[in-house]
Amino acid sequence: MQALLDLLLYDWLNAEALCQRPRHKDHSRETFDAALDAAERLAREVFAPLNRTLDLEEPRLIDGKVVQPQGVRHALEAYAQLGLLSAGHDQNAGGLQMPYLIDLAANAYFSRASISLSAYAMLTYANANLVMAHGTRAQKQAFAHPMTTGRCFGTMCLSEPQAGSSLGDIATRATPDGAGHAQDPLGPRYRLRGSKMWISGGEHELGENILHLVLARSEDERGAVRPGVKGLSLFAVPRWLVDANGERTGERNDVKLIGLNHKLGYRGTVNTLLAFGAGEFPVRAPGGLNNRGAGAIGYRIGEHGQGLALMFHMMNEARLNVGMGAAMLGMAGYEASLRYARDRTQGRATGPGGKRSEGPQVPLVAHTDVRRMLLAQRAYAVGGLALCLYGARLVDEKHTGESDSAAEAATLLELLTPVAKSWPSQWCLEANSLAIQIHGGYGYTRDFPVEQFWRDNRLNMIHEGTHGIQALDLLGRKILGDGGVALQRWAACVEATIDRAHATAELAEAADALADRLAMLRVTVRRLQEEQDTARVLANAGPFLEAFGHLVLGWIWLDLSLCAGARPVKGVEDEQLRRGLRQTARYFFYHELPKVDAWLAPVSALDNTCAEMQDAWF
Amino acid sequence: MQALLDLLLYDWLNAEALCQRPRHKDHSRETFDAALDAAERLAREVFAPLNRTLDLEEPRLIDGKVVQPQGVRHALEAYAQLGLLSAGHDQNAGGLQMPYLIDLAANAYFSRASISLSAYAMLTYANANLVMAHGTRAQKQAFAHPMTTGRCFGTMCLSEPQAGSSLGDIATRATPDGAGHAQDPLGPRYRLRGSKMWISGGEHELGENILHLVLARSEDERGAVRPGVKGLSLFAVPRWLVDANGERTGERNDVKLIGLNHKLGYRGTVNTLLAFGAGEFPVRAPGGLNNRGAGAIGYRIGEHGQGLALMFHMMNEARLNVGMGAAMLGMAGYEASLRYARDRTQGRATGPGGKRSEGPQVPLVAHTDVRRMLLAQRAYAVGGLALCLYGARLVDEKHTGESDSAAEAATLLELLTPVAKSWPSQWCLEANSLAIQIHGGYGYTRDFPVEQFWRDNRLNMIHEGTHGIQALDLLGRKILGDGGVALQRWAACVEATIDRAHATAELAEAADALADRLAMLRVTVRRLQEEQDTARVLANAGPFLEAFGHLVLGWIWLDLSLCAGARPVKGVEDEQLRRGLRQTARYFFYHELPKVDAWLAPVSALDNTCAEMQDAWF
Repeated sequence: MQALLDLLLYDWLNAEALCQRPRHKDHSRETFDAALDAAERLAREVFAPLNRTLDLEEPRLIDGKVVQPQGVRHALEAYAQLGLLSAGHDQNAGGLQMPYLIDLAANAYFSRASISLSAYAMLTYANANLVMAHGTRAQKQAFAHPMTTGRCFGTMCLSEPQAGSSLGDIATRATPDGAGHAQDPLGPRYRLRGSKMWISGGEHELGENILHLVLARSEDERGAVRPGVKGLSLFAVPRWLVDANGERTGERNDVKLIGLNHKLGYRGTVNTLLAFGAGEFPVRAPGGLNNRGAGAIGYRIGEHGQGLALMFHMMNEARLNVGMGAAMLGMAGYEASLRYARDRTQGRATGPGGKRSEGPQVPLVAHTDVRRMLLAQRAYAVGGLALCLYGARLVDEKHTGESDSAAEAATLLELLTPVAKSWPSQWCLEANSLAIQIHGGYGYTRDFPVEQFWRDNRLNMIHEGTHGIQALDLLGRKILGDGGVALQRWAACVEATIDRAHATAELAEAADALADRLAMLRVTVRRLQEEQDTARVLANAGPFLEAFGHLVLGWIWLDLSLCAGARPVKGVEDEQLRRGLRQTARYFFYHELPKVDAWLAPVSALDNTCAEMQDAWF
Repeated sequence: MQALLDLLLYDWLNAEALCQRPRHKDHSRETFDAALDAAERLAREVFAPLNRTLDLEEPRLIDGKVVQPQGVRHALEAYAQLGLLSAGHDQNAGGLQMPYLIDLAANAYFSRASISLSAYAMLTYANANLVMAHGTRAQKQAFAHPMTTGRCFGTMCLSEPQAGSSLGDIATRATPDGAGHAQDPLGPRYRLRGSKMWISGGEHELGENILHLVLARSEDERGAVRPGVKGLSLFAVPRWLVDANGERTGERNDVKLIGLNHKLGYRGTVNTLLAFGAGEFPVRAPGGLNNRGAGAIGYRIGEHGQGLALMFHMMNEARLNVGMGAAMLGMAGYEASLRYARDRTQGRATGPGGKRSEGPQVPLVAHTDVRRMLLAQRAYAVGGLALCLYGARLVDEKHTGESDSAAEAATLLELLTPVAKSWPSQWCLEANSLAIQIHGGYGYTRDFPVEQFWRDNRLNMIHEGTHGIQALDLLGRKILGDGGVALQRWAACVEATIDRAHATAELAEAADALADRLAMLRVTVRRLQEEQDTARVLANAGPFLEAFGHLVLGWIWLDLSLCAGARPVKGVEDEQLRRGLRQTARYFFYHELPKVDAWLAPVSALDNTCAEMQDAWF
């Protein structure tokens, strides 16, 4: 994967150009490569060997403590020592001012090696970033800093047992903690009561502390709360109370582990149901309270009622990260099944005159249908990787580009984020299924790694906004919500790629095919814009997401194919990589892109079959 | 599912007409319903409660014995008592002369309740049928009869560690057992040596004995063997040697359990690697031999060199059975997710003016995208069920129809069997994924049944001929191999349905859509017939299978829709069932059928991308 990443980062996305920018001026291709190489090595040597163990030895509760396999703590300490947990932060806050693009690429190695182990790091990283972006100076010091050094781990507490996709129904309540609540140096102090479900990393003994970032419905001074998402605020709720430096005070906060969830995959990441303020650990707050059941202590981050907005501020990056994790599971399955297809002999190849029945058996990879399954996996995994890296490049552009360019990047990022989250989650799951298929019966056993990749990957269509939520976000908010502005900006990028491809002999046909689909998409969007009935417009948001996703990837593959067609300069291996990418692109144009038409058909016809279906008819 | 089966069996397939035939003259709708009701009840009361237990408590080896959860033996005894293991056999052989259609429908309940438990019964049933069809009178008595009464269980031993899809490379060797080998009353006696992999039910303590049906390369009198599939013969190899009545003689045959395979799903079915003739249980054969390592005793069934032909004789039914199992897993997931979608409230529905944010939460089933996921599951599961039942009806027609009709049924059955095996395996796996998706995070936990259905179903694209093997069988053998005769016969059936649909207002548009695709398919097949390069013709057998499969199901759904549109006669529930089927058909026409074009595109273009991909470019 290293040669591939080189090509994507440097040839395709021109990562070195970022070093011209003031924020990244201390960086160079050498510092980027050093970070990538260190990540690759740690992931391979320490993370990968733990991956199956984490699956077999699920976290268990023993004497009230979460027990995990040996090696987890050491792996995460080694990860923290790489400095990736604060790579993007300011140098004066202990960070490296690394572009997000390199950061995400380095983390890709960990997702590929062990998705469920890397999840602890990803959560902590996202958590620290949020506090760095929205916390006060004191909150950064007390909450974010211990996470960037790996002493403390983070969680995101959004879902509740009765409220998953419907965040507006969150019932956890936050009450100002007495008269002095506004004067706490760590921020406005509240008492929280309620249950949070699906909390990854919600309880463990891997570090000194856990910082829960909790969405809760906050009372104003008069005890009133607002319904819906606008009534939510964000709270930092440490498992152990801390002082101004983030050191544990020795006092346990009232956060109780109710139980562990037993999952299909992703088993290395402990997943919990937590009760806040259940009275299990009654807290004597700094203000002097001592009531059992008074609530867990939480410090508000940002303003009253801004909780969801703050969470969504980091959601783009969290969703890119989910997409990248899915793509890396796809990559892991691709690599495993390629190795198997080269080693395992079975049957004989079909030649022009039919199947030869004599002679030694051939490797699986000699069979055309096996190559098809490998090409499909590659189209999904490399396509997903490229899309997420492109998204990361947009994040960098948004943060450090010139103002026009930054604004354009922000627009494109909003539009493409639901695709970057959902497309790899869906198609790299399919890739993992193909990896099993190439292994035959062996792939269905736990003696080979591919069945675990498939189980692990199944989560990605569910967490961080389900597939259906992404579809509504894309069509309702990102495409139609701004009157089609973002779509036009993106379409201009696609047209630029199409124009360049038209100038080549090899890609002119593919360019035409893509242009036809882009035109169909525009016609379809216009029809949707003319329809007044919102329910009808959104009825086929699902198929729209499929169609748009494959169109986006058609564009990515056309652009990648142009890049890979540039004259090779690095010898035979580089040429083979480039030939392979162009052949994979060809697979995408001939075998995948035509699916766009099938998904657009019901959208374009404003088909109302699903909406008209009655419950009683099921 | 009972009302649905009624409609499919009696209204759609006119099962009662079979009672007019001499073979089934003692049957009536009452005897059919009695068998179906008994099956439904036993499956629900005894099989279903064991399903999760079988997943959690995988078969283990303790002191050399395979240990399985309590209840398995009792469940299978109760199954045997229903008489289904010999339902299709002649009355004078203890059977019921039941049509295969009813037999398969009754067994569907068991697959739905617990696929891995029902596998013991299905294997034994298929095994007994093969012996009944091809064995001598003595073999039927000694081998088949104990299986029909549930005293003995069956296995099919085809794959070897080095030979799965490539059966021509089977290396297990069968040597005539001494001078008197031809005089054994149980059939020509051989010694077998070799390993067999993926043997379901290969060792357990559920009955008195196990009968392995083993494909092996048999030596002729001069010790010569023929390479390839034509060198294979079929052998009955009992775990314990038996007398002429199938009673154990007390002498163990030389079949050794090497190990258990640990699978992703289907965990209730013990799966084994067996060694034949390894010398673990040296056999004193009736002829007086006593050599350690002399081989396992096997009695040849049928002629020398006819092994694969005999196995394939039962392969149509075995493949229908795999398809039915996949469809029933799809059905189980559909039913579970429908229950969940009705019970679980989450969010608010989108109306013409957008999403309402107040009021109580609505059930999941109120959301259009959830209905889409339910409709898709239903289209896959009911479609798969209908296709397999149609296949079973063809089996009956082939056996008991008038000669022309029987010949036509045989032709259609050959053509449709790869679809009946592969389509439900692929799409009901997708259905199970949608069932997880509807459950959200809960579906990803082992607290709900849907993740197990998904894992269990993943096997079906692998066993009894992988998906890729089905694709080659369909395109190479069934479509092109007979010069297009079978395709024409089938197309005539499709056209008859299209004509009937054209006469209705509701279905005329769907009929047009189907007719267009049928025409495209014909053009594509013609192109393939004109191409001389066999490798190129078969390069896109995979996408061809996808396209043909969806076209077959488009026809099934159009035909079902016509049937369901007939005036309802049985009150509100019947009307709702029929409305639901018609709406599901509509979903299929608008959301699924257009995919045919995308799959046909590379086939029709004779795209050679996959064949041209080089190993070094991956």
